[in-house]
Amino acid sequence: VERKVAVVSAAQTKYGKSPVTARELALTAAADCIDQAGADPKEIGLGVVANCFGVVESQAHLAPILMTQIGNPSAPSFTVESACSSGGSALHIAFAGVRSGLYDTVLCVGVERVTHLPLAKSTEYFSMGSDYSFEGCCGATFPGLYAVMARAHMHERGTKSEDLAAVAVKNHENASMNPKAHLQKRITVDEVLASPLVADPLHFFDCCPFSDGAAAILVTTEEKARKMGGESVEVAASVRTGGPAALQSRERLDSLDAARRAAGLAYRQARITPKDVGFAEVHDCFTIAEVMAIEDLGLVGAKEAPRAAAEGITARDGAIPVNASGGLKAKGHPVGATGLGQVVEVFDQMLARAGTRQVPRSDVGLTHNVGATGGSCAVHVFKRMR
Amino acid sequence: VERKVAVVSAAQTKYGKSPVTARELALTAAADCIDQAGADPKEIGLGVVANCFGVVESQAHLAPILMTQIGNPSAPSFTVESACSSGGSALHIAFAGVRSGLYDTVLCVGVERVTHLPLAKSTEYFSMGSDYSFEGCCGATFPGLYAVMARAHMHERGTKSEDLAAVAVKNHENASMNPKAHLQKRITVDEVLASPLVADPLHFFDCCPFSDGAAAILVTTEEKARKMGGESVEVAASVRTGGPAALQSRERLDSLDAARRAAGLAYRQARITPKDVGFAEVHDCFTIAEVMAIEDLGLVGAKEAPRAAAEGITARDGAIPVNASGGLKAKGHPVGATGLGQVVEVFDQMLARAGTRQVPRSDVGLTHNVGATGGSCAVHVFKRMR
Repeated sequence: VERKVAVVSAAQTKYGKSPVTARELALTAAADCIDQAGADPKEIGLGVVANCFGVVESQAHLAPILMTQIGNPSAPSFTVESACSSGGSALHIAFAGVRSGLYDTVLCVGVERVTHLPLAKSTEYFSMGSDYSFEGCCGATFPGLYAVMARAHMHERGTKSEDLAAVAVKNHENASMNPKAHLQKRITVDEVLASPLVADPLHFFDCCPFSDGAAAILVTTEEKARKMGGESVEVAASVRTGGPAALQSRERLDSLDAARRAAGLAYRQARITPKDVGFAEVHDCFTIAEVMAIEDLGLVGAKEAPRAAAEGITARDGAIPVNASGGLKAKGHPVGATGLGQVVEVFDQMLARAGTRQVPRSDVGLTHNVGATGGSCAVHVFKRMR
Repeated sequence: VERKVAVVSAAQTKYGKSPVTARELALTAAADCIDQAGADPKEIGLGVVANCFGVVESQAHLAPILMTQIGNPSAPSFTVESACSSGGSALHIAFAGVRSGLYDTVLCVGVERVTHLPLAKSTEYFSMGSDYSFEGCCGATFPGLYAVMARAHMHERGTKSEDLAAVAVKNHENASMNPKAHLQKRITVDEVLASPLVADPLHFFDCCPFSDGAAAILVTTEEKARKMGGESVEVAASVRTGGPAALQSRERLDSLDAARRAAGLAYRQARITPKDVGFAEVHDCFTIAEVMAIEDLGLVGAKEAPRAAAEGITARDGAIPVNASGGLKAKGHPVGATGLGQVVEVFDQMLARAGTRQVPRSDVGLTHNVGATGGSCAVHVFKRMR
């Protein structure tokens, strides 16, 4: 019999511009997470840190520093990096660790700090997540690469700038109800369309911000979760997939192959269909990414996808609420933290503690976390523990 | 019943100064490894890359690029980093992946390229593996930190510079028989002692070089290993531990707590005692590190440890051959590759293909891979498949 895996606690810092370094951000989220669980740090068998650009603060080998700081220096720990899907990869490793029987309790902490860098520098670092020899080095940074996908979507599917803008408007509105969000300001479609073009057809407000922040979750066995007594959430599916690293190698540009496959495998692993999903946190680094995601995940049909936000389908009170947290777009995108921050939102929603942004149907939640332009993807499904 | 885990193939590039980038080094080792196994790249369920400083070549997210290049872009992959123990951590993740039943076949590839950087730059990057806020930023680079441990060892245990020099002499001699080694030149105790002091009491020849290189292993189930038909090696124990990140938090400086605990756990997991170990590859980033390692692992007694190399105990034909490959000291130390390169040596020794440096008793091999000054440690035990 396979061991069931549970999330027993989840916490995050506010996303935004941090005066303190990544090690302090990570410690803050980790300590809060451990506190909320009422756990003894010494119970933690393994620490998995998700982080991409620690070297900009001259700190590699962050994981044992964190474990030392939380009071369990003896526990093994390491950092995982898969660009923007590092957080989802950390949870996947934790899942395998618990499933294997090697570990009972795993602490996952995602963290990033980049806003202290000049904008050109953070853009340069982010572009290292692309296939640099063929993309980044030629000047194709992420807004440019996602603009190519947006243009393809417009060309082949009739998607309009207004449709993309509606995604931004929805996610900013959701973030306005999230005290942990980076951008809590509501915006309008007109404001999105009037904002400067970053990479045609993507406007400034089609793009997520560079954020600092950390997120932490405590993962353990179903048995231990019950013993700990608090409410917890079952990890019903944990799937990681890959896709061709560079855009030039893709058969199509209006969908991420890695996401489609991850979704199919995750639904099978969780023994559900897309219709069972009550709400989802998806990887909307750019508005076009959310349009692709909801279709790749089967949450809406191919024809509905472009207009889903505009028509309220993905609103908090719509047929399938997407990014009730505000998403990467407005909650923010501290790269290493992002995938675990999605889990924090799912955990809060499932425990009915999401305040004014609470979604109506929170029995089954899904997270979708993409690395770069789709070279990596993690999809997780969460169910209420019975 | 727990699934047994096997290494079915192992390959590495020559260590040294590489004109090509990390992505080419990684691909070279990976392709050779897959070739030797006669495996179909599509059979690989997961790719784990061990790498620390990919950003110096502007490439993060290296794992899906490698998987794309070997012809299996759909497989999940990510990078693991735990400073100099990244390679050992990669194998540990592969072990958990196979043990959990989530994956049948995992490709681990370690890689690093730093020699194209100015020496001051590579020193700066390496120091990021320390607890930078308390060590690196104050100028305490790794030679300095290991010099502190060497001085403590001399003070408390009577270890002499000649004892340390004997480690270097042995490992250079071993490397002279290893065509993949970075430094294939034999040296004498007098040469070591006459070489410049890098950080008193460590001389130039007490220190490992900065190296470029890659190493790859293919990890799978016992069942699949048998089906593949070639010779393979059982991973009888896979243990990762942690220790206090900075030297200032340690109770003692003449031993690594993380290594002692890892060794104890590994022997129990493999159901052996230290006496059963036929040969070992240990983490000799500095000569003093080998002296500590062989004692921490229980391969020699506390009194024997300082003079073990000088007295021939750890020679290829000694009681317990240590670093027959040449070790980090002379085979070289391409950070991300090192822990997996140790496994390549164990694999070659156990398959009796180590040429003139073949050790006499190769039925049980051990690898010991340390992150930084002992914030992380990985110990693996390998047995001949029966």
